[in-house]
This record gives sequence, structure tokens and C-alpha cells, in this order.
Amino acid sequence: MQQQVLYTSNVNATLSTIIEGGNYNAVMVLADSNTRHLALPQLPCLENATVIEMPSGEASKTLDTLTGVWRAMQQCGATRHSLLVNLGGGVVTDLGGLAAATFKRGIPFINVPTTLLGAVDAAVGGKTGINFMGFKNEIGAFAPACHVIVSTTFFPTLPEQELKAGFAEMLKHAMLSSSESFFHLLDTDFSCINYDTLLDQLRDSIKIKEDIVRQDPHEQGPRKALNLGHTVGHAFEAKALADGHPIPHGYAVAWGLVTEAVLSHLILNFPSHQLYALASFVKSNYGAFHITCDDYPHLLDIMRHDKKSLAGEINCTLLHSCGDYSINNTISNDDITAALDIYRDLVD
Amino acid sequence: MQQQVLYTSNVNATLSTIIEGGNYNAVMVLADSNTRHLALPQLPCLENATVIEMPSGEASKTLDTLTGVWRAMQQCGATRHSLLVNLGGGVVTDLGGLAAATFKRGIPFINVPTTLLGAVDAAVGGKTGINFMGFKNEIGAFAPACHVIVSTTFFPTLPEQELKAGFAEMLKHAMLSSSESFFHLLDTDFSCINYDTLLDQLRDSIKIKEDIVRQDPHEQGPRKALNLGHTVGHAFEAKALADGHPIPHGYAVAWGLVTEAVLSHLILNFPSHQLYALASFVKSNYGAFHITCDDYPHLLDIMRHDKKSLAGEINCTLLHSCGDYSINNTISNDDITAALDIYRDLVD
Repeated sequence: MQQQVLYTSNVNATLSTIIEGGNYNAVMVLADSNTRHLALPQLPCLENATVIEMPSGEASKTLDTLTGVWRAMQQCGATRHSLLVNLGGGVVTDLGGLAAATFKRGIPFINVPTTLLGAVDAAVGGKTGINFMGFKNEIGAFAPACHVIVSTTFFPTLPEQELKAGFAEMLKHAMLSSSESFFHLLDTDFSCINYDTLLDQLRDSIKIKEDIVRQDPHEQGPRKALNLGHTVGHAFEAKALADGHPIPHGYAVAWGLVTEAVLSHLILNFPSHQLYALASFVKSNYGAFHITCDDYPHLLDIMRHDKKSLAGEINCTLLHSCGDYSINNTISNDDITAALDIYRDLVD
Repeated sequence: MQQQVLYTSNVNATLSTIIEGGNYNAVMVLADSNTRHLALPQLPCLENATVIEMPSGEASKTLDTLTGVWRAMQQCGATRHSLLVNLGGGVVTDLGGLAAATFKRGIPFINVPTTLLGAVDAAVGGKTGINFMGFKNEIGAFAPACHVIVSTTFFPTLPEQELKAGFAEMLKHAMLSSSESFFHLLDTDFSCINYDTLLDQLRDSIKIKEDIVRQDPHEQGPRKALNLGHTVGHAFEAKALADGHPIPHGYAVAWGLVTEAVLSHLILNFPSHQLYALASFVKSNYGAFHITCDDYPHLLDIMRHDKKSLAGEINCTLLHSCGDYSINNTISNDDITAALDIYRDLVD
């Protein structure tokens, strides 16, 4: 099952063409409380679709919300010939994708990401999921959307924080690709974004991810490269969620990238000038996630539960330098502790 | 992802070889209250596995049970390198398969069906699922087990009803295959079963299913052949469940086969001698599912919600004769009503 990524400056026209060509017996749209009011009205082709609304935010990415979406699909008589359009950020596309993938063992769905992070994350790879018992994406499936419609149309009204959150994933892709791409993105000034340029950068960024995913759709090997920044980042994010102060996923990734760049430096001699450039960019644009030594045991525990780790081990993707990555590094507790210390020195 | 079906008279030896070769960091076994006490002790290779127990029976095939299995897997620290062995009938393999397919976006699992129906149903096809809001397998995924271990070892202690339930699916496969296979199975005498012969028949039956599934893993077309007997059968089963008097799935299929053979006769001239032979075998071995005209609207409503139907239409696989099937027949309310009337005359 291939998914088609479409880049457009006219989402309504693109979506409308797909829906007309699909001969669906019902069209449903999953939106959150924000996208229902801000994005849906820009898509007249969904005028007659059944709207399923979920609360916004990471805290809604739960089994309860999923159950509600299943129930709503059932109540509107959805069949395998019906279509679900997921209109929102990563929470909506992850949860909606899982809902569609498991309803009657799978109905077609289209992702229309409305945030930069959603576009970078959801556009390729077919990962869906919900959080469960305090763990991120603990329940999910690999299930590609039939189409992903990527556009910057919805971005100008987003808070700057949302743009930065997505940008962290683009940074990750650039670090996996080349030092040129990496330093090029570090030139970005969030106070004056050109959205056409951003759509081009987004296309480049997604291509990097596509190349990696194509080699390994079920994350058996090479795809683990995309985990860069995420072992530590997920731990920051899960801890923040458990403490009742959720942080944006992209921010967690930015801080995770810094910590894992430190690990890369300690273990694989990742160049210090690349590390300092990253840390300085992250510190000035993202601030810091504040932790103390007392938080380390909890963070390590979460990392050991990461989906990509073997039981009891912490597994990271690291870099020799930008563009030269190494997957499946088993990290000792001492190294993680040292890296968290240095992260705090650099950013916190 | 291919799944390997292994036929054996020594389940423990076969399972043991797979587990030793798999290098899993944890092995879990999902059993129900029956198989935990009757089947698990026959498998010493699972001595050190973490046992997850669920209640037996169709009424346990729920989101609540699924959530409990996810939680148990999480609590024993399962990762993508852990293995789940589903030891039980169709309820255990369907629910356990879904649990494994969605835990951390998919961990490997092995099905060890302990009932004839479980073996015929679970051995190929990779369908998993739970019931939801009164509908059978409403939530699920296509997720093949890495291995299915088929054996008749556990059958002699089963109630005769369980054997008959599984036999109905074998009957379905024979009807899809040829009139020779069909009449051969009608010679079966449930009071004296030879289990070695049954293992051979089971292998033949599963081969018929495999051939069909191979053409169409995601049920877009030809696989719908396997739906024979199931549009009506599922409706009988769902109605019985909703009424609080659940019936075995296989019995529902047997009665569904009769009703759909009637439809086949009405619409495609399915030979009357085949219809009468089937009805007589079903009546004497399965008895009847009692319905009245008052039940028709509810039954039709359930059929319209079937996963294989377009909204509002009832879709059946029918037969010109045994071995010559036709998928995607849209059935009118009048024809269903007539067929249910005749079913009652023949069997009830």
C-alpha cells in the first residue's frame, strides 16, 4: 500500500479531485476543536462530510478519544468504501489514522496536516498511534494514508511555537542528510517566514524521510535513523506529560537532538562546532526543558521502554557528523547521565 | 509479511524450535480460562513464559479484554523483540493477534489454535479483531501471525459442539472447491472421528483458503468468496449475542450456508440436490437457529452493516454450484425474506 504525497497551494482543489475520483459512499472528517473552526471552513469540498470532532492537544491522544471516533464512524454507517479525512496536526492524523486502520479492519483515509510538524511527521511513513498508560504511541499500527496533502496554507495563523515544533523535525532530517542542509536551516529567522520557500524546504525534508522509509517500511533497520533525537526527546515529552505539564513534541525533539548530539560527540566524535551551532540555535529559539539530577532515573526508565529498545537497554541513533549516521547504539547509563549533564550546561 | 502454517502432531516440539530460533527477549502466552488448564500444561516449552489469562468465550472479545492484554504486555516489559503465543480458539487468536499487531505498532505473534474452528479460521488470512458496539469484528486489523501451528492434539477433549463448529468452515471451503469435496465431507460421522484423517482434511481445507487469500490479501475482490455463509451467519450470530444467548460461530455459519445456498438456488440456480443434502446434514448435526418473521428487520439491519457491504446494501457470495462461486451479489430485501422463509422450512 503506497501513499501518495501531494504538495499544493490549493488544498480544496486537490482534496476535491481525490474525493470526486474515489466514489466513496460516505466522507467523514476528523477535526479537533481548533481545525474545525480555522481550517474546515477553508475546504468547501467537505461541506457535506460528517464532521467528527475531538478535543485538541496531546492529552486527547487516548483510547477514550479513539473509541469515540470508532463509535462516530459506526453511527454514520461507515463502511470500507467510506473515507476519513484527518484534518489537523499530528495528534489528529496519528489518532485518526489508527481509527481508520482498525475500523472494519481498515478503511481508506487522507491526511491533511495543518501544522508544520504534522506535515513532516505524518506525510510519510504510515505511523499511527495513541498514548497508553503514560507511554507515547504505545498502541498503534503501520498504516499509510492513501494520500497526504501537504501545504503551508494553514500555517500563517498558527502560533510561532507550532512552526518551531515542526522545524525541529526538519532539522533532524537535515542532520541525517548533510552539513550543508543543516547549516542552511540554521539560517532560518522565525520572525520573517516566506511560506513558498518553506513549502520547498518541506518538500526537500520529506524527500529525505521518504528515502529512508522506502528502504525499511516496518522499522526493522535503516528507518531507525529517523529516531535521531527521539529516544531522549520522547523521554522528555513523556516525563512532562506525566508531570502534568505537556510540552510540544517538536520542542522535545529539539532538546533531544541536542542531548543526542552530545552523545554522538562523546561516543562517535561528532564535530563540536556542529554541536555548538545546534545547541545555540535550539537555546535561542526553543529555550530549555528544565531537569535536575533527581529526574534522571525516571527519564532513563522511560528510555528503556522505548519501542526501539531491547528490554533494559537504551538504544539511540547517533551521528559521526551531519549526513553520516549510525543506528542501534546501545547507550550506557553513565553516558546518558553525562550527556544530560552537558545538555543542561549547553541549553538549560 | 508471510505467515507460515505448520502441521504437526507434536506441538511442543514445533513451538520449542521456533522459540529457540527466534532470540526473543520475552515470551508471553495468551490463554483463556480453559486453555490455560487444558492445553498449556501440554507445552513445557512455555514453562517460563509470562501467562496472560483472559476469560473464555465470544462475550470476552471486547475492547476491555484487549486493553487488559495491552496492559499485561506493558507490565512485563514487552518490546518489539518479544513474542506473544496465542493459545486458544478463535476468540483468543483474533484478540491476541490484534493486541500483538497494535502493541508498539506490532510485535511478532504465533497462533496455536486449540479448536478446529480456530485452526480453519486463524491458520491463514491474518484477520484479527474484536467485537464493538454489538458488531462482530468491527475493530481489527489484517495482521498475519509469523507462524500458525496446526494440530489435532487438543481436539479429543473438546466438546463435540466445538468440532462441529469448525467443521462448518471446512464445509464452506469444500463448497467453494468442488462438489466431490462437498459430498465427501457430508459422509462425516461425528460419533467416530479419526484425528489423523482430520488433520489431513484440515490441511486440504486450509489449502483451499490459502489459494483464495493469496490472490487477495486485503479482501478487495476474490477473497470475498470466503464470505460464503457469513453475511447471513454473522447476522444470526450478532442477533443471538444481542439477545443474550450467544451461539457458536460455526453453527451460525452452518445455518448461514443453508440460507445462502437457498439464495444461490433462487438467484443462480444452485442445484436443488446439493441444497437438500446440505440442509439435511446441517439439520441433523446442528439443529436449527430459531427465528420468526418478527426477527427479519433486525437481521436485515445487521446484514446491511456487514464489513463487506456497501452502505444500505446486502452483499453475498453465492454459488452457481459447488466449486463455481460468484462474489458481490447485491441481494434484495424480498430475496432475503424468501430465503429466510425457506431456511425455516428446511431446517427450523
